[in-house]
Amino acid sequence: MRRAIYPGSFDPITNGHLDVAERALRLFDEVVIAVALNEAKHPLFDMEERVALVKASIPALQGHERLRISSFDRLLVDYAREQEAVAIIRGLRAVSDFEFEFQLALMNRKLNSEIETIFLMPKDNYTYLSSRIIKEIARLGGSIEGFVPESVRLALARKFGS
Amino acid sequence: MRRAIYPGSFDPITNGHLDVAERALRLFDEVVIAVALNEAKHPLFDMEERVALVKASIPALQGHERLRISSFDRLLVDYAREQEAVAIIRGLRAVSDFEFEFQLALMNRKLNSEIETIFLMPKDNYTYLSSRIIKEIARLGGSIEGFVPESVRLALARKFGS
Amino acid sequence: MRRAIYPGSFDPITNGHLDVAERALRLFDEVVIAVALNEAKHPLFDMEERVALVKASIPALQGHERLRISSFDRLLVDYAREQEAVAIIRGLRAVSDFEFEFQLALMNRKLNSEIETIFLMPKDNYTYLSSRIIKEIARLGGSIEGFVPESVRLALARKFGS
Amino acid sequence: MRRAIYPGSFDPITNGHLDVAERALRLFDEVVIAVALNEAKHPLFDMEERVALVKASIPALQGHERLRISSFDRLLVDYAREQEAVAIIRGLRAVSDFEFEFQLALMNRKLNSEIETIFLMPKDNYTYLSSRIIKEIARLGGSIEGFVPESVRLALARKFGS
Amino acid sequence: MRRAIYPGSFDPITNGHLDVAERALRLFDEVVIAVALNEAKHPLFDMEERVALVKASIPALQGHERLRISSFDRLLVDYAREQEAVAIIRGLRAVSDFEFEFQLALMNRKLNSEIETIFLMPKDNYTYLSSRIIKEIARLGGSIEGFVPESVRLALARKFGS
Amino acid sequence: MRRAIYPGSFDPITNGHLDVAERALRLFDEVVIAVALNEAKHPLFDMEERVALVKASIPALQGHERLRISSFDRLLVDYAREQEAVAIIRGLRAVSDFEFEFQLALMNRKLNSEIETIFLMPKDNYTYLSSRIIKEIARLGGSIEGFVPESVRLALARKFGS
Repeated sequence: MRRAIYPGSFDPITNGHLDVAERALRLFDEVVIAVALNEAKHPLFDMEERVALVKASIPALQGHERLRISSFDRLLVDYAREQEAVAIIRGLRAVSDFEFEFQLALMNRKLNSEIETIFLMPKDNYTYLSSRIIKEIARLGGSIEGFVPESVRLALARKFGS
Repeated sequence: MRRAIYPGSFDPITNGHLDVAERALRLFDEVVIAVALNEAKHPLFDMEERVALVKASIPALQGHERLRISSFDRLLVDYAREQEAVAIIRGLRAVSDFEFEFQLALMNRKLNSEIETIFLMPKDNYTYLSSRIIKEIARLGGSIEGFVPESVRLALARKFGS
Repeated sequence: MRRAIYPGSFDPITNGHLDVAERALRLFDEVVIAVALNEAKHPLFDMEERVALVKASIPALQGHERLRISSFDRLLVDYAREQEAVAIIRGLRAVSDFEFEFQLALMNRKLNSEIETIFLMPKDNYTYLSSRIIKEIARLGGSIEGFVPESVRLALARKFGS
Repeated sequence: MRRAIYPGSFDPITNGHLDVAERALRLFDEVVIAVALNEAKHPLFDMEERVALVKASIPALQGHERLRISSFDRLLVDYAREQEAVAIIRGLRAVSDFEFEFQLALMNRKLNSEIETIFLMPKDNYTYLSSRIIKEIARLGGSIEGFVPESVRLALARKFGS
Repeated sequence: MRRAIYPGSFDPITNGHLDVAERALRLFDEVVIAVALNEAKHPLFDMEERVALVKASIPALQGHERLRISSFDRLLVDYAREQEAVAIIRGLRAVSDFEFEFQLALMNRKLNSEIETIFLMPKDNYTYLSSRIIKEIARLGGSIEGFVPESVRLALARKFGS
Repeated sequence: MRRAIYPGSFDPITNGHLDVAERALRLFDEVVIAVALNEAKHPLFDMEERVALVKASIPALQGHERLRISSFDRLLVDYAREQEAVAIIRGLRAVSDFEFEFQLALMNRKLNSEIETIFLMPKDNYTYLSSRIIKEIARLGGSIEGFVPESVRLALARKFGS
């Protein structure tokens, strides 16, 4: 049994994240979506909300019965070890992503050489998609249909009172 | 008649921005410099000041009689459509610019496929020029002559009390 | 009347090139697709074939009556000046594209400051498309439907005897 | 049972490649090192030699009994499908790698959406290692110990008569 | 006598910084580590602490008797001129570093053409090391041994109460 | 006495190379321009011609009496050690330069840890300048004045019979 962990802020989860999770499910027996607390980043949604939005979004995924959702506020590699994961999943969209992710992955390997970081590509029409851009569009009243699950769309509408 | 929109924070406008605007004027019948509110970025100059500095800077540009100045606080593509623009102008200086601009442009195309984003290069000795660096130099008492119009130089001197 | 020139090897033309040409037609009164001789690159198709494939491909484009096709074997900026073009069009797909194109554009500006290089983005599902990859897939017997016009597909099939 | 394919020219195989293969073995039940013919690249070693050097190098790898070696001269995705692989493995070292690999992976996904490309990072002291640099050092009489398996070192010495 | 200045926030100094300083000492007669105030960045350690940590860290360096430590809160090029430095030293780790550093260096050259910026590479196993990542690991209770000098490790432990 | 080596193909030398050499002369007591044989690259000018063009170009440089010219056909680090150089000089213009140079420098450090690679920036209006582009412009009959020394301009005119 091989388990992979897919960490992130998921503030909020987008269709790009869901696409990466579904791809990971084809490669591993179990996938854990692990929501990082990340308070320093001043997330729009608090931990409880972010976890709830992930939970509401995954039933549509193929293989979702092998998907677990959790949250953590510690060193990723320590959490991954505790979860007995063999791999950390990261989505790559652009060169700037790549560099930071690369540094992070090298550092994580230094901290725990038993866990491999693997990079997956989201669907090509999700390459311009990020939680940050979604929040900006929603704040300005633009349409985010097709970019996020319906529950996220509603939650953003509530946040921005539109 | 083809109109292009050149959006930005312009906090404050630099000679690099003016150079891009002048190039756009050669390609389009009318160019709108559109100052974005962008309060989340905590601009040094408020909206009114930024618009005033743009206004004070443009009479020197060739073709400035076909240049309009405006401000907006909404989704760029919605504003561009309302202005009946066929193109959004963006200046490109470096690879890091490029990636973010690219994602933004793809997203804007998704939101409104009728408006094309086009990228122009500022003059090569403006490649290292940004509003952020200008403010940093001014704050530390360095000379910014040749990088910004005179009115901007004075406004920065007033802000930093030098 | 504003004319733009869209230069390239077009060895052979792909749907990505056609997409860029169609976008340029919305921005300019006339667009010239200019096939560069580029013998040093050992093109798969000779000049005559490349021009013929472009010609066969363009009737489907919106605005194609304002599109001209030509070929040249000289300095691009000299050819652009002769054609009385105000702009050189280049498609940008990726960071590596960007850097080389940027250097070229700066050099062209140095050689002729009156002609502006402008960068357009092809449709996002063409970002992984290049003449080189198309030729490689065709050579190995893969399907290139949806990536090139029908006439190009047939010409590649003839070349690779499949 | 999940099988992954690790394609490349392997001209010749380096310790960086072996490191990636070993990492892949931890993630998949079976890994196929697939040597691509790639005659257009004018490889230094012919197909038979490259396969033999891979074969001589792998007994040292942990999990090598789940490793197979093959060669192919066709579209990678077609070969991967025939091999019933769920994933294509690629090593990533640098930004320039990343961009090309990304385009290739997107194209491969278009050609066969059932096979996922996953990216792994070699050990950090292999980031500057490539078959091309190894051949250049060997040609100039430098020491390549620690960069390639012993059999490859000897084969290069024979090629360059040193 | 040639003096170089090595500026930075050093919040806190890492083994990567020390490695760069040691390399600079081989190339120049005297090296000044210059701690920038940078209050806008909200440093974790105040100026006094950062200088003290640098001081505690350097006795281990080869050539440290030619190393001086100072702090500054003004334009870097003005400070460098006052110090009669011929060069500004910057460590480069990644492409994203490179671009920003490049712009900064071009701007500094514009402001003072007599001082050359030179770029050095830290040891390869420090490429993923940054003050930011170190602070994040320390905050989450991870081990930072081998990444920072002992005095820094203790200071971080005190800050994060672990 | 500190000596640096500035290696390259110099096929042919450009004003960008000369600018880097002049900067190096300010930082080191002696600089050796070392022309690499590089026959695999099929240089336009043979070794003798390239050395002669460098020799003809340097009298204009400030500090040229501390400049030596040589050629080599071996491992750069071996040659640098023989020359008792403490540093290898490389000019950096763009991100793509940077990555390849970085890999090369890390490899060279592995091969000889006593020689430091340092990166210098050419003048900003030489960022788009390369020997390859110069040859292309000259071949097509364009003007290369201001980009190369007069002797190089004449040599290129003779090569391309213009």
